[in-house]
Amino acid sequence: MTTPRAPQTPSFDPGLTQQYTGALLRAINKDGTFNVKRRGITRFAESVYTQLVSISWPRFLGLSLLLYLAVNTVFGLIYLMIGPDVLHASERDSGLSDFARAFFFSSQTLTTVGYGSVFPSGLAANLVASIECAFGLAAFAVVTGLIFARFSRPSAKLIFSNRLIVAPYREGTSLQFRIANQRSHVLTELEADMLLMTVETDAGGQPKRNFAELALERRSIFFLALTWTIVHPITEDSPLWGKTREDLERLQAEVLILIKGYDESFSQVVHARYSYRWDEMEWSARFLPVFGVSPAGHLVLDVSRISDFVRV
Amino acid sequence: MTTPRAPQTPSFDPGLTQQYTGALLRAINKDGTFNVKRRGITRFAESVYTQLVSISWPRFLGLSLLLYLAVNTVFGLIYLMIGPDVLHASERDSGLSDFARAFFFSSQTLTTVGYGSVFPSGLAANLVASIECAFGLAAFAVVTGLIFARFSRPSAKLIFSNRLIVAPYREGTSLQFRIANQRSHVLTELEADMLLMTVETDAGGQPKRNFAELALERRSIFFLALTWTIVHPITEDSPLWGKTREDLERLQAEVLILIKGYDESFSQVVHARYSYRWDEMEWSARFLPVFGVSPAGHLVLDVSRISDFVRV
Amino acid sequence: MTTPRAPQTPSFDPGLTQQYTGALLRAINKDGTFNVKRRGITRFAESVYTQLVSISWPRFLGLSLLLYLAVNTVFGLIYLMIGPDVLHASERDSGLSDFARAFFFSSQTLTTVGYGSVFPSGLAANLVASIECAFGLAAFAVVTGLIFARFSRPSAKLIFSNRLIVAPYREGTSLQFRIANQRSHVLTELEADMLLMTVETDAGGQPKRNFAELALERRSIFFLALTWTIVHPITEDSPLWGKTREDLERLQAEVLILIKGYDESFSQVVHARYSYRWDEMEWSARFLPVFGVSPAGHLVLDVSRISDFVRV
Amino acid sequence: MTTPRAPQTPSFDPGLTQQYTGALLRAINKDGTFNVKRRGITRFAESVYTQLVSISWPRFLGLSLLLYLAVNTVFGLIYLMIGPDVLHASERDSGLSDFARAFFFSSQTLTTVGYGSVFPSGLAANLVASIECAFGLAAFAVVTGLIFARFSRPSAKLIFSNRLIVAPYREGTSLQFRIANQRSHVLTELEADMLLMTVETDAGGQPKRNFAELALERRSIFFLALTWTIVHPITEDSPLWGKTREDLERLQAEVLILIKGYDESFSQVVHARYSYRWDEMEWSARFLPVFGVSPAGHLVLDVSRISDFVRV
Repeated sequence: MTTPRAPQTPSFDPGLTQQYTGALLRAINKDGTFNVKRRGITRFAESVYTQLVSISWPRFLGLSLLLYLAVNTVFGLIYLMIGPDVLHASERDSGLSDFARAFFFSSQTLTTVGYGSVFPSGLAANLVASIECAFGLAAFAVVTGLIFARFSRPSAKLIFSNRLIVAPYREGTSLQFRIANQRSHVLTELEADMLLMTVETDAGGQPKRNFAELALERRSIFFLALTWTIVHPITEDSPLWGKTREDLERLQAEVLILIKGYDESFSQVVHARYSYRWDEMEWSARFLPVFGVSPAGHLVLDVSRISDFVRV
Repeated sequence: MTTPRAPQTPSFDPGLTQQYTGALLRAINKDGTFNVKRRGITRFAESVYTQLVSISWPRFLGLSLLLYLAVNTVFGLIYLMIGPDVLHASERDSGLSDFARAFFFSSQTLTTVGYGSVFPSGLAANLVASIECAFGLAAFAVVTGLIFARFSRPSAKLIFSNRLIVAPYREGTSLQFRIANQRSHVLTELEADMLLMTVETDAGGQPKRNFAELALERRSIFFLALTWTIVHPITEDSPLWGKTREDLERLQAEVLILIKGYDESFSQVVHARYSYRWDEMEWSARFLPVFGVSPAGHLVLDVSRISDFVRV
Repeated sequence: MTTPRAPQTPSFDPGLTQQYTGALLRAINKDGTFNVKRRGITRFAESVYTQLVSISWPRFLGLSLLLYLAVNTVFGLIYLMIGPDVLHASERDSGLSDFARAFFFSSQTLTTVGYGSVFPSGLAANLVASIECAFGLAAFAVVTGLIFARFSRPSAKLIFSNRLIVAPYREGTSLQFRIANQRSHVLTELEADMLLMTVETDAGGQPKRNFAELALERRSIFFLALTWTIVHPITEDSPLWGKTREDLERLQAEVLILIKGYDESFSQVVHARYSYRWDEMEWSARFLPVFGVSPAGHLVLDVSRISDFVRV
Repeated sequence: MTTPRAPQTPSFDPGLTQQYTGALLRAINKDGTFNVKRRGITRFAESVYTQLVSISWPRFLGLSLLLYLAVNTVFGLIYLMIGPDVLHASERDSGLSDFARAFFFSSQTLTTVGYGSVFPSGLAANLVASIECAFGLAAFAVVTGLIFARFSRPSAKLIFSNRLIVAPYREGTSLQFRIANQRSHVLTELEADMLLMTVETDAGGQPKRNFAELALERRSIFFLALTWTIVHPITEDSPLWGKTREDLERLQAEVLILIKGYDESFSQVVHARYSYRWDEMEWSARFLPVFGVSPAGHLVLDVSRISDFVRV
């Protein structure tokens, strides 16, 4: 668990392309998504489920409400089409128009509340109502299943220090960043991977994206109870050996971070991605401690100080 | 992660049989299923759940509707059997036959819409209605649970290049194919396995199916953000070394592809299978790039060009 | 994936005990459960959920029905206790006793069918009804959740050959058994472990249970499309080397089988356990093939012939 | 599977901090939680889902009831605000106040029981009722989803012996503790890790928390059918070599235990944590057996004797 992995062959493709086609935006956005657009696929190929699970809450609830109104309107119109008297009402002079009565009857049927103040009469209306309430039960179950899926999705809420630091380390220097768990549930068996992406010129004089794994002092920890400082020692084997701030800017360096762990509250493996570009690095600095001890003897972690560092 | 696995002993059984019994269809179909039929097991041994989850949507919905009608018919007949007057109706002259009234009352009970325009009267009818609505609640929950299970099932929608290409590679050649993710959700920790299936003659002169793993330049990638070109270098260790197009046809060669990855949207591991036969290989070709850069600096992947190649 | 694991130190405890306390029944039953009883724990410590998920269908449905009747009886009595007239009924002369009316009103409330032919009147009855229907919704959801959990549980339905065979193998012999998948869904990434349990006398002359891993020719296969014959070569390293049928009886030998695989239909890892005792072994035999080719060129697996062997 | 892991470099951070800041409480509580408080994060950042899934049953049910009453009160007030006559009631003189009638109508709508003894009249009341019952269906589904999630959560109920024992082992001594599964469902593929946490003085004379992995005789077992005695042999490589009881007290030694396994009933990986401090260790003792054989030949495990030991 402690041995850093052997340094990789300097160039490989971790899943992005090596081909260089001009100045690019960062590879990984601050929210962990990739800066990639795709063409040639219809929106239809996407899973409806994952779309509905990942859109924002206001959009989701708006969509649900719209659907509810649309379905009631459609069924309301069907009842009107069948005939003016297929819906019996306890009170005729309720001030509701025929359409409003049909619309509300539809909603009472769809939700199976079925007050009975309005009820279907005749074969056709009964048949439509019978199908509507079966459909309603299924539709509501799916919508609420989606609601449930939305807020029971596992998600790591890791906080990353906002700088990548070149810090003193034993006799030399190292690249360091720090993470903390924003939530109180425990993450176990954390693993980190660190990749350096640069733009270099290949043998043929062609600019090319270059990827290299950065060996870590410790690739995994047992649990994330406090913070974890992830350390890449800049040894002679490191692709960063001898590089200056100016070198990294010229190479358009971006350090890609991949973290996974097991979230006990969700009983699932969760992933997080992050990246630091050359202009988000701090040279010759050191992280400040983020915890103390309470009078009662508890360790106290102050998550808000995760990014605090001091120049050395 | 980068070291290709050592070449395997030339013949082993990956889960299909080695015994050769005449000309066979391909081992893996284009949709990833195996070309195997089974006998000696009753349909009953199958899990009802997996059957209901994997049949097509029209069949599933048709089946549900049929079940709904059947249950209502059965309960309707039970009410009729109990007696003509066990169902009280607000309006006697609704133009409904006794059976239709019983049928619709049953559907109002099963779905728990319960308008009350018709209601049970007497001990027997009340008892049946009381059981019907409890059964209805359970049945609808199961059906909608199935609906939800159906469209929340994880599934990789990988697109494979439609040709397997023998491409120039360093000083020699290599076998290559390309995949892309049809969906926008991210796949991480992808792993690929490539197997060569051939029919060869064993020591006793008996034709026999032969399996060999094809060592890959890179067995796994961190994430599938764009495309992944999977490369088997045809070195001296490769079972394809020195083989020609005619050799592969004679050997009825089929290259089996197994891919797995972690789908973040579904928080689950997903699998894909594919295969290329000798007549789906392209000799001396090279894949064309499938992406460019948008004016805003985003990488743009054109999934529709995944199979594009040029002869060299 | 192909290298058999190095032979283990001859004695270790895989999770059963090494202590020998007289003649025992087999360690693993034919249905995969362990032959262990436990004492000193209250039934209460068990998870209610797992109990309800694992009892038989008749017991589960009987229990649910009983609960339904009990809850309705309790609520019915509460309504009666509040007063004789708290339940208004559309028809007074329905032939129902006061209790029956209260019981059926309760069931109409619990299931939320709410015909309205009987409805609560006054503060107390309304309050109780209001709580009953909220409780009913929750209770039904849990019951149906359990129903769903019951039949969506992943389970490998592997068929094991009913004999463990000592078969010719290269120059020597080997221990072999065969499995097939009873269901049509694909299992991938199968792994097998084989353990030998014997009763031997230790240095102090004390009888003691002994466990040894039996190295397999191939510990894992990519997928289980047909059958898998699991082979332990009886080499000089094997604890079975030189052992006769009589030796194994004297040692009360039991071969424990542990198999796991990934079930694509359930998207989950499934496990199976099995064991063969010395009297379920067949010496000098060979399995017969279990498949042929259909006229259309499909491989056809005959699962019913999985145990067929011939003496050699 | 049997080789104990090589001893680690003596000091590393497994996820707690190495910085020493005075006398601390134990690192891991007896219920497996970490003794860490956090500051600088709003309660809001926590996942609502995990909070609702992990609070106690009384709090959860109280909260649900409160929400139910609150929602009905709010909707009841809305109906009153719309006007005095928007709710038609079958009986005017039921002894209910206007608010009580509105409140109970709201509960009948929210739960979709909809007796119809009270029903909405006019556009505004119908509209509100139509939205309330849709909202009610969704809300109830979420609440019952939570109930289901609460009691279907996988959780290992492992019992740990209440002492960590320094027991005779081969020629030397070893550190031992024992676990048993409190539930009857089978745990497979168990893995254990044992860490020693001490407070030592570093080169600069600064007190510092020190962590070291304790190599285990056997890190994993195939299944937990009876008990598992986890053994750290105190060899010359062990950080405990030559340490006395007084040494461990001075070092404030705490042995951290991490266990994971696969729970077949839940089809999920479960984790357990535990720790023993220096004052929970027993020197020169031996565990007593916890099982016998029933007359029928079954192994019988007596879980209540898991902690029984004898001094040697």
